[in-house]
Amino acid sequence: MRRVGIVGSGQLGWMLIQEGIKLNIHFSVIDSNPDAPASRIADEFFLPSKYKEFVDSVEVVTPEFEHVDPGVLKYAEEQGKLYPGLRALDLKLERHREKLFLKQIAIRTPKFYVANGPDEAISFSENFDESVIKRSSGGYDGKGQYLTSNTQKPKLPDDDATYVVEEYIRYDFEASIIAVRMRNGRILFNEPSYNFNSSGILVYNYAPCPDFGMREKARAIMEALDYVGVMGIEFFIVSGESIVNEFAPRVHNSGHHTLSGSSISQFEQHLRAVLDIPLPEPQLLVPSGMVNIIGREIDNNLIDSLLSIGQTKVYSYGKEPRPKRKLGHVNVVAESTDDLLENISRIKDVIYHGELP
Amino acid sequence: MRRVGIVGSGQLGWMLIQEGIKLNIHFSVIDSNPDAPASRIADEFFLPSKYKEFVDSVEVVTPEFEHVDPGVLKYAEEQGKLYPGLRALDLKLERHREKLFLKQIAIRTPKFYVANGPDEAISFSENFDESVIKRSSGGYDGKGQYLTSNTQKPKLPDDDATYVVEEYIRYDFEASIIAVRMRNGRILFNEPSYNFNSSGILVYNYAPCPDFGMREKARAIMEALDYVGVMGIEFFIVSGESIVNEFAPRVHNSGHHTLSGSSISQFEQHLRAVLDIPLPEPQLLVPSGMVNIIGREIDNNLIDSLLSIGQTKVYSYGKEPRPKRKLGHVNVVAESTDDLLENISRIKDVIYHGELP
Repeated sequence: MRRVGIVGSGQLGWMLIQEGIKLNIHFSVIDSNPDAPASRIADEFFLPSKYKEFVDSVEVVTPEFEHVDPGVLKYAEEQGKLYPGLRALDLKLERHREKLFLKQIAIRTPKFYVANGPDEAISFSENFDESVIKRSSGGYDGKGQYLTSNTQKPKLPDDDATYVVEEYIRYDFEASIIAVRMRNGRILFNEPSYNFNSSGILVYNYAPCPDFGMREKARAIMEALDYVGVMGIEFFIVSGESIVNEFAPRVHNSGHHTLSGSSISQFEQHLRAVLDIPLPEPQLLVPSGMVNIIGREIDNNLIDSLLSIGQTKVYSYGKEPRPKRKLGHVNVVAESTDDLLENISRIKDVIYHGELP
Repeated sequence: MRRVGIVGSGQLGWMLIQEGIKLNIHFSVIDSNPDAPASRIADEFFLPSKYKEFVDSVEVVTPEFEHVDPGVLKYAEEQGKLYPGLRALDLKLERHREKLFLKQIAIRTPKFYVANGPDEAISFSENFDESVIKRSSGGYDGKGQYLTSNTQKPKLPDDDATYVVEEYIRYDFEASIIAVRMRNGRILFNEPSYNFNSSGILVYNYAPCPDFGMREKARAIMEALDYVGVMGIEFFIVSGESIVNEFAPRVHNSGHHTLSGSSISQFEQHLRAVLDIPLPEPQLLVPSGMVNIIGREIDNNLIDSLLSIGQTKVYSYGKEPRPKRKLGHVNVVAESTDDLLENISRIKDVIYHGELP
């Protein structure tokens, strides 16, 4: 029996476990919350203080969340068990290091400056008509991000944090690709998806989407990092060109739809990669999309309404509702992209009644 | 949170639970074995003596195996919680009652006699050139079945059991349909599959297969029983006509492939039906098949060999290997039926090396 340790216990870990049960994999989770989604369905649960026991008890350690105590990751790397490795994970702890890495390997991103403290950040932002100031550490799902323009200056927290000040791109749309790299260096791609965000949070997405050079850039990033596992890479598409927004060194929200419309889900892809189990190029079987359920309780009435719309599946993470919090998602497949978009629209209406989060 | 109780804890319950986690369903399992597949991943486990507590703690009770202590089923039916109901389950406890029911509703089966004891069974068998004598109770997966012919008389156990003596049908092939009936009487169908058995055990199957009147017969059976949930109905196909072999009042081995190639698996279909959750007509997205892993250990080498064949998924039930025991299965999808059959053939070779179980 293969033994996998997951660092973090949110919905990504919860879906990794769901997709690994069939292979009779034993899952351990390390997290401070024994009631979190992945903790509840894991075979074994460890508190963060027990990180050595956790790492010693499994053959592979993989994080489902970047913002965790680095002790467990460091120890897992020392034991040769961490996939993906610290190099990729470290870049994500501070945004400016991710940006500098992308620049170093000549991957186009929005223009940016690295600022020491809020005053320098505001000052750099004046070089752009519009910009986004992002705290370098701790931010995800739109947290710690501030829009600026010639007429609007945000109030930043009074601290000595590092910031990335980034040109605001007037993109045509956003897109992403879910790629997976095996231990032997082989890279496989899922069909890219069109993504639609609101306030920095993914609201819905669907595949397929044309390539726009995304595969090539994903390959360059993963090879430079000697990466193993699934990576989600987000792009802005401007006039047919893809510009990297950021990458996630793990399974990614824009790949949740692969649980329904693909031959192998991103979660199983990740497990096969980190465990060195053979994996063919995953195939998108039909047009496939996802709508997040953000900031509202998922009761039986909502589930029933959503499941009465075409070929849908509801994933309810069992988390406490909070504003802006991802509490579940709806997967949907259809025979044509037109039908898919119509059903995505109906799903959004049922969840949000026209008011996106 | 919806609460489902599963009676029995084999691989069918194990897959029901896997498909229900996404809906945040709470699963209880009642069985004598706490290490059986479904017991291991259930939220709560009950020993058979605790059947009242088990039934009282859930909103719906559904069996994944017919040959269980009837006490729990009877109590669940009294409480209005048993889906499908006792009427269908009772028919399966004794084969001759299933046969008489089918005759009563004018569904064609092989010609048969009901015999009291082994001597009468042998005597009836002389009315056919070839026949199958089946013990009325306790048989499944080819157990308790005896082939007879003009030249070959089997030795039956010396007991006073009831037997069904059935004409042996020289069929062109076997097939089955997975149908589901909702509480409101609506019936939905999966694409039928071609099935290939060896010694009474399903070895592999694939979909789609033409209808041959299977939908109409499935409908008649389910309506006559006021059935709720998924039912698997097995047929012999002779000169384009379908003859019912038997039905299974539960999810069925020939529907396992729906976990890979269909918009909604038979397991989720069953959960939605018994919980009265909306369900659309399930769609087969691509040619889809399954090969059982019978009677041999599933180690990492076998898994890796199987997963290197096209778009495959391995389900390893984590049961102790025994001859003739179903220990796992391989799902496979492909773009064409030709590709599918080629990969099924490769999968069989990897598992059985040319010697079927």
